[in-house]
Amino acid sequence: MVTIDLNADLGESFGAWSMGADEAILPYVSSVNLACGFHAGDPHTLRASIQRALTQGVAIGAHPSYPDLLGFGRRDMALTPAEVFDCVLYQVAAVQGMCTALGGCLHHVKPHGALYNRAARDADCAAAIARAVQCINPRLILYGLAGSCLVAEAEKIGLRAVGEAFADRRYTLEGTLVPRSRTDALIADVDEAVAQARRIVHQQSVIAAQNHVVALRAETLCLHGDGPHALDFARAIRRALEADGVRIAAPTNGYPANG
Amino acid sequence: MVTIDLNADLGESFGAWSMGADEAILPYVSSVNLACGFHAGDPHTLRASIQRALTQGVAIGAHPSYPDLLGFGRRDMALTPAEVFDCVLYQVAAVQGMCTALGGCLHHVKPHGALYNRAARDADCAAAIARAVQCINPRLILYGLAGSCLVAEAEKIGLRAVGEAFADRRYTLEGTLVPRSRTDALIADVDEAVAQARRIVHQQSVIAAQNHVVALRAETLCLHGDGPHALDFARAIRRALEADGVRIAAPTNGYPANG
Amino acid sequence: MVTIDLNADLGESFGAWSMGADEAILPYVSSVNLACGFHAGDPHTLRASIQRALTQGVAIGAHPSYPDLLGFGRRDMALTPAEVFDCVLYQVAAVQGMCTALGGCLHHVKPHGALYNRAARDADCAAAIARAVQCINPRLILYGLAGSCLVAEAEKIGLRAVGEAFADRRYTLEGTLVPRSRTDALIADVDEAVAQARRIVHQQSVIAAQNHVVALRAETLCLHGDGPHALDFARAIRRALEADGVRIAAPTNGYPANG
Amino acid sequence: MVTIDLNADLGESFGAWSMGADEAILPYVSSVNLACGFHAGDPHTLRASIQRALTQGVAIGAHPSYPDLLGFGRRDMALTPAEVFDCVLYQVAAVQGMCTALGGCLHHVKPHGALYNRAARDADCAAAIARAVQCINPRLILYGLAGSCLVAEAEKIGLRAVGEAFADRRYTLEGTLVPRSRTDALIADVDEAVAQARRIVHQQSVIAAQNHVVALRAETLCLHGDGPHALDFARAIRRALEADGVRIAAPTNGYPANG
Repeated sequence: MVTIDLNADLGESFGAWSMGADEAILPYVSSVNLACGFHAGDPHTLRASIQRALTQGVAIGAHPSYPDLLGFGRRDMALTPAEVFDCVLYQVAAVQGMCTALGGCLHHVKPHGALYNRAARDADCAAAIARAVQCINPRLILYGLAGSCLVAEAEKIGLRAVGEAFADRRYTLEGTLVPRSRTDALIADVDEAVAQARRIVHQQSVIAAQNHVVALRAETLCLHGDGPHALDFARAIRRALEADGVRIAAPTNGYPANG
Repeated sequence: MVTIDLNADLGESFGAWSMGADEAILPYVSSVNLACGFHAGDPHTLRASIQRALTQGVAIGAHPSYPDLLGFGRRDMALTPAEVFDCVLYQVAAVQGMCTALGGCLHHVKPHGALYNRAARDADCAAAIARAVQCINPRLILYGLAGSCLVAEAEKIGLRAVGEAFADRRYTLEGTLVPRSRTDALIADVDEAVAQARRIVHQQSVIAAQNHVVALRAETLCLHGDGPHALDFARAIRRALEADGVRIAAPTNGYPANG
Repeated sequence: MVTIDLNADLGESFGAWSMGADEAILPYVSSVNLACGFHAGDPHTLRASIQRALTQGVAIGAHPSYPDLLGFGRRDMALTPAEVFDCVLYQVAAVQGMCTALGGCLHHVKPHGALYNRAARDADCAAAIARAVQCINPRLILYGLAGSCLVAEAEKIGLRAVGEAFADRRYTLEGTLVPRSRTDALIADVDEAVAQARRIVHQQSVIAAQNHVVALRAETLCLHGDGPHALDFARAIRRALEADGVRIAAPTNGYPANG
Repeated sequence: MVTIDLNADLGESFGAWSMGADEAILPYVSSVNLACGFHAGDPHTLRASIQRALTQGVAIGAHPSYPDLLGFGRRDMALTPAEVFDCVLYQVAAVQGMCTALGGCLHHVKPHGALYNRAARDADCAAAIARAVQCINPRLILYGLAGSCLVAEAEKIGLRAVGEAFADRRYTLEGTLVPRSRTDALIADVDEAVAQARRIVHQQSVIAAQNHVVALRAETLCLHGDGPHALDFARAIRRALEADGVRIAAPTNGYPANG
């Protein structure tokens, strides 16, 4: 039976500001990535988000970021690998400790925004993230862009890594994401997004420019919790995959059995 | 044999700014309280401070604060008990996770600055701190002002609490600290501080105003790592106590044996 | 002809987070108070808000706060008067300079949240704010709770002060606001709010507990830009006052003519 | 008579943390660049620094930065030109308003750290800074690396720009600074620094690699206020230049006479 994880970035409110439709997206996902306080999230939001995820029974991940609250972690910052290591260590430690305190268990880590993008192509940054995660807990799973540097660096040190793909983003011939600055970066049509999701799950590939088929090995699909049509997309993708007989579940870690 | 813990607040640098003589004070203490990022401390400072403490073999505590970097956590803030709970949970989780990741083990929690003072007299705030600490790990020891609300609330829920006293602060007839706003708040003479330390350890009391003897049950003395004469005081106090045959060691937690 | 100012707190977004219906509320007000970056607002939000206000032709005010982004400036903080002075000076300077740079002119200052409440009852805090505003520009008008300490301290040093009242808040017999913690703090019925607005404008009074009439000398009414019914209230109040022949306009400063 | 400006970056303390020997360096400089709150500086530090500079009679500049307190503004951040414009506008507005409020007058703007370096080579970033400064006040002088993009972009829009050079940094054959990552980036010998300062002032050049003479048109030299030998360097450079009959004074702006 084919299995896929559906994940969403949640807990991105901050203080008096709320963001995202966390309650609404939860029924469609099998795992969530929670902001840790550096680009979004605060102690209250984080606690409430962990409790909501535990109630819903989804796997909980930490979503560490560059320290850029004003820029929501979306601007690249020239942190050294040592600074990345320390920042990830702190953020994952905080979320893991709170999960445990609230009766749960941290399942994975997925870097956020500009740090995610940097880690997809910069081996030193990727390695720093992987080491920090391993240092916190070698059973944690690291989510990264499918086929990226981050997945490679995590596997190099024996960490379980999971490739992530996007149903609503277009891909280049190299299997990377078309940058958001380009007008064709996003798939706006729900049927096209569903088709891409199904192709990723069943054929491990996407259709890139000029109808080229590009191989893509992904174990998780990112669903967006924000934006006008986010919930429609999430619902349609989940239903289509379930109708195909796909099992929606968070990835497991063979460790330490096969570690 | 009489035992006392000597603690110091360390890791209070932030980014490019350094504070305190952490290296110099370490040989005199048996436990340290590390800033968690809310009033001071940052991921790099915290990691380096944990590693330094582990090398030195002293017990590591988290030193959570109000979220007030600009005010160094020294200004009272009207947080609700729920906000205090969440803030302490987050900060202690971060330090505990980093300790474990670096091969150590979190030993205690001591609130910082205005939060410490508030918790000494406000039962709701004290209870929120105690519950957060217990939630993270019921084996953690909570340091609070000797005879204060915080010690009482911690003990009420079965948490091991340790009363803290100060060799260089003067006490009121009620056993509380003379406020820093008063000119006689601090003991500036090293011999007087040594005498107060010895009295606290051997007689469980201090001399307050008009030479009244006030009972004070403390298991830890706070040594300051900052200020011109801090190291002289620390050295003199440690030597005098050792000369008395006092054992300098971090408090232990009978839990779960007698839990 | 009777004149009243209708003001609203705008520019309270921050980075990726948006708050309030700034565009929608603008047509109903004659002055706006813009967050300065300490409780909300950021350089981009502030610039965009100033430009929007200039286009709409409403008077622009700075809305300085305690430095508490996480708490949205709503939690009291024990700042000294000197700290309040410096914080207000910095925030008002930033907004004034940006207004001027963008072709406008700063008109007034209204403290935000917990600082507003503190300044309403604490003369030292109020005086610090008034002096900071005067220092920046003695022609600036200071908005404060009608009948409060802030209005008194401003007038004491020759600053033009404007009393603010609320159409949708209930008043105590002393003419202060019923605290938000009480269930009867807010007026939820639009007709009742309109009636209170009209009474404030025409009779300089409000109906407090047990139907007591309490005198209230206000030159500005605060309209809320947030909440489900905010726009309905704003529209209804503006229309009712206009139907009464009231002129809606920002207060003017006789200074220096009568200074 | 030859004139040169000697400038220093001051006001870089933050809250409880102090940095630099501001009092000690002031007698040697003719202009200061004050941190605006984004990489360092806070309302209190800024006010005290302005007052100190006014007392000493030196020209006051704003020292705007990326919003990166933790990284002290030294890490490059991928801000868009629009974000740079808004951030510079806000910071310069705040310092200008405070200068005026305290009886002084803002004289210049010098970007800090990673923003300074980015503006030296990135025309869009440089243009955004120049436009923000002009928008605040077209009489302000913009300090930038001598021969850099920032100087060129400022002059392009009619802003008075001043090239800055360093007595204690080595230069490449292209007239740019040898990066700090290289071991030969800094000149550690005071006599060599004095010689470089004198050459910059008298011959408008520096000696780069392989003894090549590189032309450098600078109107200001940066003196460092921090570091073990900073004051020795400052004193030696000032004395040597004065002994040469050089006038030490802040640059003036012909505007609007020749504007």
